[in-house]
Amino acid sequence: MSDTVRIIEIKKSVYEDNDREAEALRAELKEKGIFLLNLMSSPGAGKTTTLTRTVGALKDRYRIGVMEADIDSDVDARRISETGVEAIQLHTGGMCHLDAGMTKQGLDELAGKEINLAILENVGNLVCPAEFDTGAVKNAMILSVPEGDDKPLKYPLMFSVCDVVLINKIDVAPYFDFDMEKCRENITLRNPDAKVIPICAKTGEGIEEWTKWLSEQVDQWI
Amino acid sequence: MSDTVRIIEIKKSVYEDNDREAEALRAELKEKGIFLLNLMSSPGAGKTTTLTRTVGALKDRYRIGVMEADIDSDVDARRISETGVEAIQLHTGGMCHLDAGMTKQGLDELAGKEINLAILENVGNLVCPAEFDTGAVKNAMILSVPEGDDKPLKYPLMFSVCDVVLINKIDVAPYFDFDMEKCRENITLRNPDAKVIPICAKTGEGIEEWTKWLSEQVDQWI
Repeated sequence: MSDTVRIIEIKKSVYEDNDREAEALRAELKEKGIFLLNLMSSPGAGKTTTLTRTVGALKDRYRIGVMEADIDSDVDARRISETGVEAIQLHTGGMCHLDAGMTKQGLDELAGKEINLAILENVGNLVCPAEFDTGAVKNAMILSVPEGDDKPLKYPLMFSVCDVVLINKIDVAPYFDFDMEKCRENITLRNPDAKVIPICAKTGEGIEEWTKWLSEQVDQWI
Repeated sequence: MSDTVRIIEIKKSVYEDNDREAEALRAELKEKGIFLLNLMSSPGAGKTTTLTRTVGALKDRYRIGVMEADIDSDVDARRISETGVEAIQLHTGGMCHLDAGMTKQGLDELAGKEINLAILENVGNLVCPAEFDTGAVKNAMILSVPEGDDKPLKYPLMFSVCDVVLINKIDVAPYFDFDMEKCRENITLRNPDAKVIPICAKTGEGIEEWTKWLSEQVDQWI
């Protein structure tokens, strides 16, 4: 753990063909034995708190490196840094997503740390990040209860590209008009293969099921 | 009120200079006596519920037309349509924002209804919509309590372009670590001139203050 958080000012990718670049990055990660998870959500859905729980559950099992993408600020990387794993902040300079080339710049900064589980916290946005393959092995997204059960209808691409959907803040469900079954149906409509796991990152509920799922994916890859 | 919601498939603006186009649109609106409000927020922050309340409070005072921008679906326009005002759905076809040219396409569809208050519900996104002047007279955004009081630090541009910030879902504040004073400070850091109004769109709390502010802006313009 370092006292100061490293901040990387990432540059727009020079590669026009992002899909090709993403495939190349995945092949490179496979060869090096590194699993990359791309974590997406709306602003404030609980990405950083979920990550803190995830790191806590898995840091004895894997060598974890976290890349926090943000337009500005290093609030998130500081919080992750406190868990004792390697964390860097990627500044996107106003850009609303990360592509594979930008993700690779972050991974290069983590090189030498011998990590085998890299986690990218993407920019808080349900639109643009869904459009760019980052080169991740798996895509995860967090939908929080206060956002509503209709979000899969309104942000179809995001839900269709995710392997797993974490439904966070289930502790406050009694205070919102949120129908878990309807939400599952809406997700299935967009993506019948998506795994859905209700969690509460604040209390830790559901984190075991989520980290078990993640471990299985990582173990199959590395 | 119409039974079927009109859905407009908007096209990418042909104008490269969006700022110039936005200024031209504002001048046109001034001439026609139409006030345009651009309402932005994260997904699920409560834009449509707030709009429903706003329309309910102001529909006897102004002739209101609402443009609901969405990537897909017409869920929102249907809800607004039920309030009895003119509502159209703008499909952005995957795009994460609206620019002035796209907004004008929507306004053209509302022409002939003799509206004097047009409200644009922008795409749910704290990044991209902030980058494009839509030609609106005023920009408003909704930050909901569950998203957290640190959002002005993480999405600086959005907060800096808004004339008013509505802090929604204050009814659930006891269940979240949300510090209203800290939030106000963070907003002031980004935009000392922003008006901040706590509201609860669900119960109607704070809607009077908000619609009073909006009416003042409209009356000065039309």
